[in-house]
Amino acid sequence: MKIAILGYGNLGKGAEISVTNAPDMELVGIFTQRDPASITTITGAPVYKAIDLINYRDKVDVLLLCGGSATDLPHVTPQYAGSFNVVDTFDNHNHINEHFNIVHSAALAGGHLALISTGWDPGMFSLARLYSASILPSGKVYTFWGKGVSQGHSDAVRRIEGVLDAKQYTIPVPEALDAVRSGSNPQLSTRQKHTRECFVVAKEGADLAKIETEIKTMKNYFDEYDTTVHFISMEEFTRDHSAIPHGGFVIRSGKTGYERENTEIFEFSLKLDSNPEFTGSVLAAFARAVFRMNTRGEIGCQTVADIAPRDLLNCSKEQILKMI
Amino acid sequence: MKIAILGYGNLGKGAEISVTNAPDMELVGIFTQRDPASITTITGAPVYKAIDLINYRDKVDVLLLCGGSATDLPHVTPQYAGSFNVVDTFDNHNHINEHFNIVHSAALAGGHLALISTGWDPGMFSLARLYSASILPSGKVYTFWGKGVSQGHSDAVRRIEGVLDAKQYTIPVPEALDAVRSGSNPQLSTRQKHTRECFVVAKEGADLAKIETEIKTMKNYFDEYDTTVHFISMEEFTRDHSAIPHGGFVIRSGKTGYERENTEIFEFSLKLDSNPEFTGSVLAAFARAVFRMNTRGEIGCQTVADIAPRDLLNCSKEQILKMI
Repeated sequence: MKIAILGYGNLGKGAEISVTNAPDMELVGIFTQRDPASITTITGAPVYKAIDLINYRDKVDVLLLCGGSATDLPHVTPQYAGSFNVVDTFDNHNHINEHFNIVHSAALAGGHLALISTGWDPGMFSLARLYSASILPSGKVYTFWGKGVSQGHSDAVRRIEGVLDAKQYTIPVPEALDAVRSGSNPQLSTRQKHTRECFVVAKEGADLAKIETEIKTMKNYFDEYDTTVHFISMEEFTRDHSAIPHGGFVIRSGKTGYERENTEIFEFSLKLDSNPEFTGSVLAAFARAVFRMNTRGEIGCQTVADIAPRDLLNCSKEQILKMI
Repeated sequence: MKIAILGYGNLGKGAEISVTNAPDMELVGIFTQRDPASITTITGAPVYKAIDLINYRDKVDVLLLCGGSATDLPHVTPQYAGSFNVVDTFDNHNHINEHFNIVHSAALAGGHLALISTGWDPGMFSLARLYSASILPSGKVYTFWGKGVSQGHSDAVRRIEGVLDAKQYTIPVPEALDAVRSGSNPQLSTRQKHTRECFVVAKEGADLAKIETEIKTMKNYFDEYDTTVHFISMEEFTRDHSAIPHGGFVIRSGKTGYERENTEIFEFSLKLDSNPEFTGSVLAAFARAVFRMNTRGEIGCQTVADIAPRDLLNCSKEQILKMI
């Protein structure tokens, strides 16, 4: 199957590597808003102008949309879903329903299949929430993120006056994880679930106390959390904080038995050295399913809830039965 | 949808509770080889003779086969797959392919849908192996079982002369789990992965040393493991070892990055107070999918690999999008 990638940030690079490594996929090219001549790809894949993408509609089986959820995907996914089978990572949980409906109309009109909101959360974590809810209907699910880098929170810290660079780690509170795993179904406040840790490089002469206060009291980002701030040198920052790790936990605790006397704990976790590379791998696997399903005549918008696992795998039926 | 259960051991009881609690299911009855008059069901569900089951073929949407994999399911599943949509928990990993083919022919001939080998392993653990393989193709998967009661091993100990009752726990070795989670992809022998612990009630005057040696050297069951044997009183046995807990871990460690420089750890685990109740819950969820898929015209044999998660859930599309 022939795959194209739109957008060449960290996620586009992760997808490039995964598609290139898949023996059943061919990477047609990477499409970008930037000047293609300014980009050297990791694998040597060709780079084209985004505006030329439409000319490739007959040469591409699935288009991977590697833009951001805040400003790109809400219009990019509907824009291309009419002309291509597409996969995106739209992760704004409060607007998935709205995004779904807009993309569904566009994909139906073009006779294409669109898969939205895949990756790890939403994506693999959604699957854990769905499967566990189906099997333990009498239960409660908890999602924890981290330890890992939150891009949005790091950006917010970088916008503070006097900050040269910054990285923010989200960390699940171990006691909260333990309470959930015990099956006690605790009520946990935002503060009880996660802490935040910031590593900040300040400009020379900046008011460190002021920066720290601004971080800790920032509305919607930090004010509901216990936050630790470390000021470090640029050298230390580059050495220790250049990676983009992430991960987290989905835990559902449910009751079984005639009198709900037994507790069953379902736990899924990811520990990722590279958030964008893992997400790129997820995109590639779901691109395979989208191609197969559209070949079978499926059109419109779908999510990970609609995909049978066999369609993600480059495996024969016999190989799949061996993994059962 | 109308559900029937064949077999009323621990698993049949677990399925009875789950089906009874599902608002979209009706339990038609429990069918047994024993005298129905001798059985009082947990929920008050009616009990019928297994031989009469065939008369209910138009009154049952899905039949849950709650027999054992060793001697029941290899012939029971093909026997009923021609007349009913069925779900079984066939767990003999080496013979799933063979079982699949026989059940497939029977189900096709009758125009029914059969789902084999669900539960937690195979079943939920299979899903973890399938999803993780699709997303981290360059990786290695490990399955650990326990801590939990192995029915087969407990039976084997009970057959030893001088043993009144016994329970065997399978326990993953913590160091092995840690090594796998580190991403080092260790080669682990059978002995390095699990230990076994037996609690034995001996008959009065039995030769305890002889029993212990017989256990520890038993071929295929214990000889490749480090096994601990505890002799306890019947009182202690009844008090502390009447439950049927189980669980385990599926961990896939995979590499991403152009030079495979990053490690991604995918981990799924279950911690179950009641193995049969949880398995019964899984059966009920997959019965829902089988009913829906057969209603859409799907026939033949399938596994968990073929089921989209949405079909397991008694939820609207909007509710599912909220869980994404």
